[in-house]
Amino acid sequence: MCQLLAMNCNVPTDIVFSFTGFATRGGGSDIHKDGWGIAFFEGDGVRHFVDHEAAVASPVAALIRRWPIKSKNVIAHIRKATQGQIALENCHPFVRELWGRYWVFAHNGDLKDFAPLQDGPYRPVGSTDSERAFCYLLQELRRRFGDCPPELPQLRDALQELTAAIAAYGAFNMLLSDGRALFAHCSTKLFYLVRRYPFAQATLADDDLSVDFSQVTTPNDRVAIIVTEPLTTNETWQQFHAGELKIFVEGSPLDV
Amino acid sequence: MCQLLAMNCNVPTDIVFSFTGFATRGGGSDIHKDGWGIAFFEGDGVRHFVDHEAAVASPVAALIRRWPIKSKNVIAHIRKATQGQIALENCHPFVRELWGRYWVFAHNGDLKDFAPLQDGPYRPVGSTDSERAFCYLLQELRRRFGDCPPELPQLRDALQELTAAIAAYGAFNMLLSDGRALFAHCSTKLFYLVRRYPFAQATLADDDLSVDFSQVTTPNDRVAIIVTEPLTTNETWQQFHAGELKIFVEGSPLDV
Repeated sequence: MCQLLAMNCNVPTDIVFSFTGFATRGGGSDIHKDGWGIAFFEGDGVRHFVDHEAAVASPVAALIRRWPIKSKNVIAHIRKATQGQIALENCHPFVRELWGRYWVFAHNGDLKDFAPLQDGPYRPVGSTDSERAFCYLLQELRRRFGDCPPELPQLRDALQELTAAIAAYGAFNMLLSDGRALFAHCSTKLFYLVRRYPFAQATLADDDLSVDFSQVTTPNDRVAIIVTEPLTTNETWQQFHAGELKIFVEGSPLDV
Repeated sequence: MCQLLAMNCNVPTDIVFSFTGFATRGGGSDIHKDGWGIAFFEGDGVRHFVDHEAAVASPVAALIRRWPIKSKNVIAHIRKATQGQIALENCHPFVRELWGRYWVFAHNGDLKDFAPLQDGPYRPVGSTDSERAFCYLLQELRRRFGDCPPELPQLRDALQELTAAIAAYGAFNMLLSDGRALFAHCSTKLFYLVRRYPFAQATLADDDLSVDFSQVTTPNDRVAIIVTEPLTTNETWQQFHAGELKIFVEGSPLDV
């Protein structure tokens, strides 16, 4: 099993604090040492970093811990291989293009005998159940909506149905973003919180580090963090229900 | 106009020496300061780095100058914006998936009024003529060969025809790789050389740096470098003919 981390905000924000705690789990405080990856949307573009070294030992992870890349949508993943060998092409997040936008996807869980008909233009490059599920999702979205991206409520309904169908094959906690919205589906375990005014101090569970967010934010900032296991010890994390799909836009969970 | 650099080898090789000279042109010794990017195949996976900062000032470029990532196929690009604003989504190289493999593409040149019918699954995310040409190439390859990747001679014929058609709209020097072969098309300017045994010393044209390749290679190593302008002052670079498409496999240009 793996661990997931995502951030969705209303202003471009750096993820250095959360990534520092999260990356410590990649071979440091935890067993997730079979690679890691992170993707940052910046406008319509994506910065995509993957590595099959443990995150604690990776020179790219060290760069990201120091370099405050600002983004409104970030998805990160640390891997404990269950299916697929330890190789770059099996590291999450995965990136594909649909409707002229990049889509980024990461998965925690294990799908058994998930072998959908793949007759669309999206084919896995690696050998994970996760990339297979991502390609299937995009194939089915394209099949339903053709060349025209749907509005958010229609997209939500389609993803609700597709994620439920995939989750019938096993644990399917997943994060998906097109750089505008962030979709999070929980099948077994996922938490979130929204940091907003008045901001307070937060202390990492995995690292000897605190940040007083009131010193580095403005009153209008809003930041949602979605993660497999709560990252901080002194904030209240909300647990997703099994089967729940949430959409985050501009730092808030939506009711659509 | 932009500058291109590619490497194709028979054993995974680092590109630190060539990239150091090349990146110096990105805002240092040259005017190419509107972003840069590099993609390394590693097995079937790709490490993809893009930045809209000048390469000389970019923290990621600094990391790559220090970190010897080993790869058999690398494509790099430094950008002088002609079409499309300075933005991450407009930085080359671009990456898409076709036939279950990643394809990496970079372009030097300027296409005028190139607006092909884009009715396949590949759509540009940014606003460059280059990404439009890449999406068109993949669309047409998929249209000709369906779900079955062709053999190299058939692929070469198709690319020869498609690159010639695109070059009718303007300068189309381009690099394309699926991680197995590297395709290089010249319409106005492109050079290459093959480094092989007996290896000698090479001295960068843009930087005060020499490497004695005989000290860092084995007699079986073979490395082809393809570039817009020769990188070294003491090696013999071959110039491509206008309209020439070359395929490099395992460090050698092929006759197919």
